[in-house]
Amino acid sequence: MPKISNKGIHMPESPIRKLVPFAEGAKKKGHKVYHLNIGQPDIKTPEVALKAIRNNTIEILEYSHSAGFESYRNKLARYYHAQGLPVEPADIIITTGGSEALMFAMGSTMDAGDEIIIPEPFYANYNGFSVASGVKVVPVISTIDEGFALPPIGDFEKLITPKTKAILICNPGNPTGYLYTQDEILQLAELVKKHDLFLIADEVYREFTYDGDTHYSVMNVPGIEEHAIMIDSVSKRYSMCGARIGCIVSKNKEVMATAMKFAQARLSPPTLAQIASEAALDTPQSYFDEVIAEYKDRRDTLISGLNKIPGVKVASPKGAFYCIAQLPVDNADTFAQWLLESFDSKGETVMVAPAAGFYSTPDVGLTEIRIAYVLKKEDLIRSVEILAEAITKYNNR
Amino acid sequence: MPKISNKGIHMPESPIRKLVPFAEGAKKKGHKVYHLNIGQPDIKTPEVALKAIRNNTIEILEYSHSAGFESYRNKLARYYHAQGLPVEPADIIITTGGSEALMFAMGSTMDAGDEIIIPEPFYANYNGFSVASGVKVVPVISTIDEGFALPPIGDFEKLITPKTKAILICNPGNPTGYLYTQDEILQLAELVKKHDLFLIADEVYREFTYDGDTHYSVMNVPGIEEHAIMIDSVSKRYSMCGARIGCIVSKNKEVMATAMKFAQARLSPPTLAQIASEAALDTPQSYFDEVIAEYKDRRDTLISGLNKIPGVKVASPKGAFYCIAQLPVDNADTFAQWLLESFDSKGETVMVAPAAGFYSTPDVGLTEIRIAYVLKKEDLIRSVEILAEAITKYNNR
Repeated sequence: MPKISNKGIHMPESPIRKLVPFAEGAKKKGHKVYHLNIGQPDIKTPEVALKAIRNNTIEILEYSHSAGFESYRNKLARYYHAQGLPVEPADIIITTGGSEALMFAMGSTMDAGDEIIIPEPFYANYNGFSVASGVKVVPVISTIDEGFALPPIGDFEKLITPKTKAILICNPGNPTGYLYTQDEILQLAELVKKHDLFLIADEVYREFTYDGDTHYSVMNVPGIEEHAIMIDSVSKRYSMCGARIGCIVSKNKEVMATAMKFAQARLSPPTLAQIASEAALDTPQSYFDEVIAEYKDRRDTLISGLNKIPGVKVASPKGAFYCIAQLPVDNADTFAQWLLESFDSKGETVMVAPAAGFYSTPDVGLTEIRIAYVLKKEDLIRSVEILAEAITKYNNR
Repeated sequence: MPKISNKGIHMPESPIRKLVPFAEGAKKKGHKVYHLNIGQPDIKTPEVALKAIRNNTIEILEYSHSAGFESYRNKLARYYHAQGLPVEPADIIITTGGSEALMFAMGSTMDAGDEIIIPEPFYANYNGFSVASGVKVVPVISTIDEGFALPPIGDFEKLITPKTKAILICNPGNPTGYLYTQDEILQLAELVKKHDLFLIADEVYREFTYDGDTHYSVMNVPGIEEHAIMIDSVSKRYSMCGARIGCIVSKNKEVMATAMKFAQARLSPPTLAQIASEAALDTPQSYFDEVIAEYKDRRDTLISGLNKIPGVKVASPKGAFYCIAQLPVDNADTFAQWLLESFDSKGETVMVAPAAGFYSTPDVGLTEIRIAYVLKKEDLIRSVEILAEAITKYNNR
């Protein structure tokens, strides 16, 4: 029997993958499972996007341009301008989700054996894309005690080797919900200029900031035009995760010409989803106002609830819709499985993502979980209740 | 300025890429350009697929399962069974086009530095996927004189090294239109068993065979269940190139579990396009009968026209909708550019794909072009007329 690749052997599985059978088991027992583990929002997709799909008059579902519809890129550039980002249509290649944008960014800038520094905890699939690209992830630890703020620049600098090609950040962060300050971004900008690195910023949660904080994009930093690569996506912004439309954005013409070669090899991003995504740009501001207000309310509900559970420590998220909570349990992995396998509160339980999977350093974050607040308020309140009851029961089992 | 990757430098451009500005130039002069260069069919997408999109009642455009909708995989397995292919739902992962299926196949079976043997001329993007995966393409030459039949197995065997992991075929072939016989497939099967290799078969043109020849799939070969990986796509079958839906199919559970990790990293294939693709499985046989009859008619028109041009040699395609033609010109690349830049016949010209880009061996196929017969009959007749006139004029210029 022919052997699979070493790369394939080392491809990580999703951190919640091994919990899925237990969640199925809980459902088979008739238990209701509140899913705090996934980033699939329950928010409705804007009607303007859905209508564009229902009203389409396509007769031949053709390839689009490999960089995406020209009309979409033009409109998207206007959207960025309105957001204060100096992005021109030529700086954009439409991709199949933010995932593909990240693959293109890595493929265009890094070879097998090269290193990328990422503050951890980080979005678990960064590991998968790195393994697929043969790139080595070098984590720099951010801590719950500091609210997952940017680690000191000296910590990054210590990790830079001749193999280091890029720094990757997620801002606001999945799984931390941390929003980098302008000062933090400027520190990173100095660093990448000094060491001639790329700064790849996954900004797919840009619009989701609360408390009046504003998002500061790598595209706004003067002087790092050749270094900055922005990853974006319609998935969360318009609750269109299934569209699989994102983009890679950079002023670096060499990077864009290279990414374009990767884009040509896979022919084009999905046509129907581009129609929806282009139309979604007409989503009225009222939609976002409502959605942000809703998420803020959910965040406040979740965080104040978690803070009331004895022994729970949580870094209050400033953006996105995730938080990391440290639990008074021996092991969050075991606890998460126990929640599904051996516990229920009046026939209900919760599914959470153990946070260890978001760290690259072994044995870090072992008592932390990631919670996505993509459920409605009542469900979050009930979930926190369940969690509180479960922690007590788990520790007395 | 930070440097792009070596991989990025070596990513090939599409063989027709450099002709695009000349095509634009021709159009600016007001010339009509017949596009014989691309595989975008002009055939209408089945109404049943388009209707499913227009009538969708989605409120939240959610991620699907990373392997694709379960309902789609089930229905697709039934489709394969009806085609005589013993494919079960568990053998299928839905991908973002055949392109992604090929990336998953390569990623799951090959590491950087491994070798893949491919009969050339081959679909140019195989080069791109190989470079992106760090895999070395080892070409084995098939010739126009043999109608692009499978090269002798001895030719493959000579190229096998400890680094060889797989043989990749396209059947029926793009760009050759060649349909491998059952005997040829069985020879390859013996070879991969003997040397413990994977046999990856890109069968996206399976339904497009003419003259009563039937397609023999690698999934039909007993005894190579652990070796065979089939690549498929809805793009050509239903004229749905823009859907970007394909699949990777294999009975090898280790390969599928590994491909699934790549699938999870990118979250899911596009949801809307899966709805269209699932519905497309209800396309009536009459649609295919008409389409095949249309392509057969186009093929006959094109081939008989080309055969009438003095000095042109063409291998008559048995499947797909491409052919390779050898022209009586000094260089097909120069000729193709000249067609767009310096020639017109009553304000009209043609765009063709120089075939050198489909060979991996340097300086082979220099006087060959690939023609896609995806235009209607009258346009093909006119295109051949233009080509004939152009060849004479070019050689007398």
